[in-house]
Order: sequence, then structure tokens, then C-alpha cells
Amino acid sequence: MTENKRPLIFVSNDDGITAKGISHLVNLMQQLGDVLVVAPNSPQSGMGHAITINDPLRYYKSNIWGEEVEAYECSGTPADCVKLAKNYLNEGRVPDLVVSGINHGSNASVSVLYSGTMSAAIEASIEGLPSIGFSLCDYSHDADFSHTDDFILEICRNVLEKGLPEGITLNVNFPPKSEEEIKGIKYCRQSVAKWQEAFDQRQDPYNREYLWLTGKFVCEDKGEGTDIHAIDNNYVSVVPVTYDMTAYKALKEIEENWSSKG
Amino acid sequence: MTENKRPLIFVSNDDGITAKGISHLVNLMQQLGDVLVVAPNSPQSGMGHAITINDPLRYYKSNIWGEEVEAYECSGTPADCVKLAKNYLNEGRVPDLVVSGINHGSNASVSVLYSGTMSAAIEASIEGLPSIGFSLCDYSHDADFSHTDDFILEICRNVLEKGLPEGITLNVNFPPKSEEEIKGIKYCRQSVAKWQEAFDQRQDPYNREYLWLTGKFVCEDKGEGTDIHAIDNNYVSVVPVTYDMTAYKALKEIEENWSSKG
Repeated sequence: MTENKRPLIFVSNDDGITAKGISHLVNLMQQLGDVLVVAPNSPQSGMGHAITINDPLRYYKSNIWGEEVEAYECSGTPADCVKLAKNYLNEGRVPDLVVSGINHGSNASVSVLYSGTMSAAIEASIEGLPSIGFSLCDYSHDADFSHTDDFILEICRNVLEKGLPEGITLNVNFPPKSEEEIKGIKYCRQSVAKWQEAFDQRQDPYNREYLWLTGKFVCEDKGEGTDIHAIDNNYVSVVPVTYDMTAYKALKEIEENWSSKG
Repeated sequence: MTENKRPLIFVSNDDGITAKGISHLVNLMQQLGDVLVVAPNSPQSGMGHAITINDPLRYYKSNIWGEEVEAYECSGTPADCVKLAKNYLNEGRVPDLVVSGINHGSNASVSVLYSGTMSAAIEASIEGLPSIGFSLCDYSHDADFSHTDDFILEICRNVLEKGLPEGITLNVNFPPKSEEEIKGIKYCRQSVAKWQEAFDQRQDPYNREYLWLTGKFVCEDKGEGTDIHAIDNNYVSVVPVTYDMTAYKALKEIEENWSSKG
């Protein structure tokens, strides 16, 4: 394989460029190709598919990973980072693979919608680039990512070799590190679940009320075949995700029930 | 119909509580029920499905629509507003309908992913509430919304009377006001399209570079049955939207191609 044939792998995340998870991913990706990083300069968890249209964007060269990895920190969201990497900072090379993460915390089930990690991956799929979002179900700053390596390399090699169906990205979630070895990979559907929110009411030093959004994850859809079921049973969950949000079954139903006759 | 039987309609948007579009929607909803507004206190276009987890939330009572409409402005995102309305400011009443908009600008096609308007509607559908996002394909601050009235009332009455399939919200887009009368409603799928981005490079007064994200909407999927086709032909487009982003067809393909045998 000549040097020019090494794939270009673009890496982003939503926890910010200094997070442990992105460093872990960058180190792994160096085994597979040339690495370009564009990542937020501040935590962007929960940013969903936000893009920056009311403010200017700034970016700065970063030397976190030394000379071998071209890296930039950016003032914007994860989706902004992908747009920058695809259209501005790539020096004309089209990435062969876009990976996002490794997120500190689960992005299984409906979290796919709130996740900045997944918005980077979904943005790439809209741009026609094969992409994967990786998340570890452990929110701690210093989480242990070591048990994810072989699976990440296997999944990335599969995508580099076989590609992905058009418009599809993968939402990959790992169980937290434990005594027990991970049992393997399960290809899954997104569980039906939600965050049951509560608001924690407080007073600031000036006696003004403010709220913190809190919540617990509630999943009643634990049948086999769901991502939550896989993770709970110590498997890696892989959900293929589409950005086509049309509810085709409901489309037929509503059309039949609502259309004026004639 | 007794007073207590009037449906409770919750209204939000992403252009902020002072936008013309939400006022138009609030006035229409007063014909159908009791109205509760929780809307951002600043424009939140392009916020996607962002939620506020790293900052406190604040909200203030607003009298924009007088005594008859209970209204609050909130420092958070559209999705935050729905969570507040559902779990904190509703005084125990569950909304019968959640409407978001009317957005100043199109949310057809992939814009559903970037749209704060639609994130409010999608958030409501995750919460199990019937919901609709309304958008006008006219970005101007002072857009003319008058041609949308009859359609909005018809669609809302349909949802109040017949409900929506579980987990489904509607993405409704109106062509801009023109000489020609709107031809009717089309039930559609989301067009495959994307924003082709460019970055406008500038220098600030301190000689530091910054960028503005710009882009043009590119749609090569204009077949009949898509939202873009409907709007281009002066119909109202109605796309049923699901928050289940699983790509079921790809799930089968990937499972068959990638799984280790045995």
C-alpha cells in the first residue's frame, strides 16, 4: 500500500478536543490511515444537530497529538466541525471515513437525537461520507476505554472495506468496562424509550429562581433486538441510523384517513 | 362543550417569543382551546435537538398576548421549552396538542434535523403528546402568514379529533404567499437533499480570522411524493415524522454481510 493510498479518516466528537475519548479514538485511527481532527473547543453534549448560523465560527490549529495528526479545535458544534472538515480544512481530500467519539456516556435509544456525537456522524452521512459514532456507557471523565479497541478497529475496517448503504451511519454503543469480557456485536434497532425529566429549582445569590434540567432514562422496550437489551447483556450494540425521518407506515395511514375524497 | 373540556394547546417555536410567526399561531390556537406558550427568549434557529444540560434554565412570565394566554419566555432551547411545559409549567394538565412555529423559513427535507421548530414537535412526540411543526417557506421577519390559517386549523382539528399514530409528529410546510391560491394538502415523504456549505472567511477588527457558515440547498430528489415537489407546486406538504431513526433495511443487509458465521 503506497502512502497516498492510506485512507483519510476524519475524527470529531462532542465532549471537546481535550476529552479522553477522542484521544483514544485518534490513537486507534492512526493504525488505519491518515487522521484529520476537527473537534469542538468546549463540551457540546446534548447539542443535538445544532449548527452555528447566528454567530461566526473560529478554529485554531492544535498540536495535542503532535505533528502526525492534523488537528483543529473549533468554536462550533459537532455538525459544524464536520462541515468544516468536509468543505474547508481537508485540502481537497475527501475523507474515506468519518468517526465521532468515543463519547463519555450512552447514545443508545432516543439519545441518538440529543447527541452531538451522533449529529457529527449523521451530518457526515448527509454529506455522503461513510461514518460511525462510538459511545461508551460510562459518563466518567476518566472512563476506561481499553475494552473497545478490537471492536472499533473491526467495525472501521468493515466500513472501509465494504462501505455502508447510502445515507446510513452507525450508532455504536459499548457497555462499561467490567470483569466480564464483552460477548460480541449485536446489530440492533433503536429502543423506544424516553428521558423522564424533572426540574431542580434553586435560587441564585441574587434571589432569582433558576432551574436545572435533570432526568432519568426510562425504557420499557427491552425486547431482544434492541440496543438497550444488547448493552444490558454485555454486547456491543450497532444500530444503522437513517436521516430520513419519514414515518412511512403512518404516511399511508394518515393519507387514507385524512384525505378529502375525490 | 363545557369550559373544562376545552383542549389545552401548548405552543412553542424556535424564532423566539417575539417572532411574528408564533403570534399568528397563538391567535389561531385560541379558536381551538386554552393556550399555554413556552418559547425561547432569543432566536434558536438551527439549534436542532439541543437541550440545556451544562447551564441553568430561567423562565419569566410574559404578557405579550394579554391575560387570556398563559405565556412564558425561557432561556433554553425549543426542546427545553417542551420539557418545561410538560413537566413544570402545566399545573398538572397534560396538553392535548403541541404546536410549534410558525417558523420563518422552510423545514422541509433534511432541514427537519437542524430545525429547532421541529425539535420541539419531535420532543413532544417522544413524550407521547400529539404534535405538529408548522413552517412557512419565507425567511423574512415580516412574512405574510395569512394564507396558512385555514390549513392550520384543519390539520389541528384533524389531530385533536383523530389523534396521531404513536410516536409520530407532523412536519407541515407552506409555500410562500403568492398571487396563486394554495392547491391543497399533499401527504409526503422527506426529500433526499442537503445543504452545500461554504465558509465565508473574514477578519475581525483585531486581524483575527473568523468564518461564517453559508450554504445553498441542493435537492436532486424532486419526484412526486416528496415535500419539496409539493411545495414547489404550491401545495402544503405534510410529512409524518418518526423519532425512530433505525434504518431497518440497512439493518438486515449489514447483519447478513458482517456477522461472523456460526
